[in-house]
Amino acid sequence: MRMVIDDLVKNPGSWLSMRKPTGVVISSRVRLARNVANSAFPGWAGEDERVRLCNRLQIVVGGLRSVPKPVFFEMGALDSLDKDVLRERHLISHELCERGRGSAVAVGAEESISVMINEEDHLRLQAMSPGMNLPAMWDALTAVDSEIEEQIEYAFSDAQGYLTACPSNVGTGMRASVMLHLAGLRMVGEVEAVVNGLEKLGLAVRGLLGEGTEAHGNMFQLSNQQTLGESEQEILEALLAIIDEVVGHEENARARLAERGATRLADAVARARGLLLNCRILSSQEALDLLSDLRLGVEMGLIGNFKVERLNEIMLLTQPGHLQKMARKILNPEERDMMRAQMVQSRLKGTSLLA
Amino acid sequence: MRMVIDDLVKNPGSWLSMRKPTGVVISSRVRLARNVANSAFPGWAGEDERVRLCNRLQIVVGGLRSVPKPVFFEMGALDSLDKDVLRERHLISHELCERGRGSAVAVGAEESISVMINEEDHLRLQAMSPGMNLPAMWDALTAVDSEIEEQIEYAFSDAQGYLTACPSNVGTGMRASVMLHLAGLRMVGEVEAVVNGLEKLGLAVRGLLGEGTEAHGNMFQLSNQQTLGESEQEILEALLAIIDEVVGHEENARARLAERGATRLADAVARARGLLLNCRILSSQEALDLLSDLRLGVEMGLIGNFKVERLNEIMLLTQPGHLQKMARKILNPEERDMMRAQMVQSRLKGTSLLA
Repeated sequence: MRMVIDDLVKNPGSWLSMRKPTGVVISSRVRLARNVANSAFPGWAGEDERVRLCNRLQIVVGGLRSVPKPVFFEMGALDSLDKDVLRERHLISHELCERGRGSAVAVGAEESISVMINEEDHLRLQAMSPGMNLPAMWDALTAVDSEIEEQIEYAFSDAQGYLTACPSNVGTGMRASVMLHLAGLRMVGEVEAVVNGLEKLGLAVRGLLGEGTEAHGNMFQLSNQQTLGESEQEILEALLAIIDEVVGHEENARARLAERGATRLADAVARARGLLLNCRILSSQEALDLLSDLRLGVEMGLIGNFKVERLNEIMLLTQPGHLQKMARKILNPEERDMMRAQMVQSRLKGTSLLA
Repeated sequence: MRMVIDDLVKNPGSWLSMRKPTGVVISSRVRLARNVANSAFPGWAGEDERVRLCNRLQIVVGGLRSVPKPVFFEMGALDSLDKDVLRERHLISHELCERGRGSAVAVGAEESISVMINEEDHLRLQAMSPGMNLPAMWDALTAVDSEIEEQIEYAFSDAQGYLTACPSNVGTGMRASVMLHLAGLRMVGEVEAVVNGLEKLGLAVRGLLGEGTEAHGNMFQLSNQQTLGESEQEILEALLAIIDEVVGHEENARARLAERGATRLADAVARARGLLLNCRILSSQEALDLLSDLRLGVEMGLIGNFKVERLNEIMLLTQPGHLQKMARKILNPEERDMMRAQMVQSRLKGTSLLA
């Protein structure tokens, strides 16, 4: 199993490090929370009960046509570094990281679909994709969901919908989210206003690293709060309309920067590249912030000999778990900051400033 | 006269932009405040009285053997940009900048000696030099002082010594100062403790730009506060002993950095060079701070193909007056920040990182 994780680290072909360009919408993700009828939620079940259910669900998920040849990772068999790698790839949640025996994850081809077993709920199905791809992810997940339901009776109430461990997920059990890169809005000083507006519309806005985190690297994860009272289609459509609007704001900010803030933009981009290419110590947070300016520069045509999709790879590999897997040893924070600097530099070598 | 100032700008051969290396002590300066007996101090004199005295003193100073072939600049004949150039070269004070008709400065060869006429006092004699050179500056200034006294009766009281417009200068009228570059102490976090210690010893510690300014670029101007009750020699000797001690602290900090903080040092130096070489907008203050890290890097052998004395030249030429003189036009602050970045980059091209 560890070998499989080592392969993951070597292979930056996952949804986050995708080999195709992304724009303002870095990635899309849909997840469904599902529970098996007449079984205690994982938080209430004893270990034996969890192990039994986990084994049963692994057999079900292992046979799905919609997730061919999944790779399974059992939480009880992974060390914390392995878990970090899976978490940094968004294949498992912080919550699942904390679990041991009786919890597992199944990962589909290209890491686009993952099925967590015995996280907060018995099943957490998720589909992820680079760029703006929520409808396709919803379709993919619906297929997985329906196939599982052929074999498992879900905990469901006609009045409330799907029942979940946490009341905030009851109903559709669906959470659709996108990661937005709002560097232009940040640079023109309007990102707070836009984020406040989104929160007033009832959407959840989080940082790159999930709940309660700051938006390092100007990455904002936008998702529906509501799971009750509206259909999945209605929720998705409302979300898509709002995303369109935010992307419009960001593009407008970038157009204004290109027109009236060209020097300021060029300054920020050249500084970010200069620091990334020269630093000897680079923290995760500073890396995200500098890579954000660099990404803006790449997307606005200011950086030569570099493709934006390489930034996704760098963002993935500069995380502590991936860094340590690449180093093949446990590194202390100082060592990680030094290795992060070297890793970024090897990947930015050969780039040039175009303006 | 303007042509002479244009020549000054082209010629970076002055004390500050000196073509020889400096260390922790960037420069030394001694000044004497003197007044003509039985004449009102400049602040109390009428314009006609000031003009008459100024003319008389110009004739005296113009004939000194100790200041051969001085160049005179009359404040009433200079525009504010010309004054800025003289002030940025430390040839005149902020105070003299504010003056017009009836005030002047005489500048000696290599800009080492300047004599301000009708500043706060009738005469402000100063001698400046790169590096640690206070005794020689004192000797040079004593020669000028004695020669003037052969022709002018100074305002002097047996009880108090030389009388001056501001009581803080009464007595010796002498202020001896050095500019110290304490980047190592800053980096190890001990600069505040050292500066507090100096202030407790009764010394004045100021920033690069004089009274009330912050120590941008880790440049600290250290001078005697006392002018009364001790002889010039006693004051100078006490100051020299303290400077020796501060230099020892700074060298100790640098040695510790080299031994135990090599990565942190290399990081700061490489970042400073990376930013200086890449920015498109560079404020005066940021320039000073980045040039400080670069200077530390040069002095500690981390920068190749570059001599520390070129940093003195850059520090001089990045100031607003010099920038505008070089551009041959008035620039707004944004334009200056852009030109400053270009100017620095043209002068740092070809440098390399050695560690």
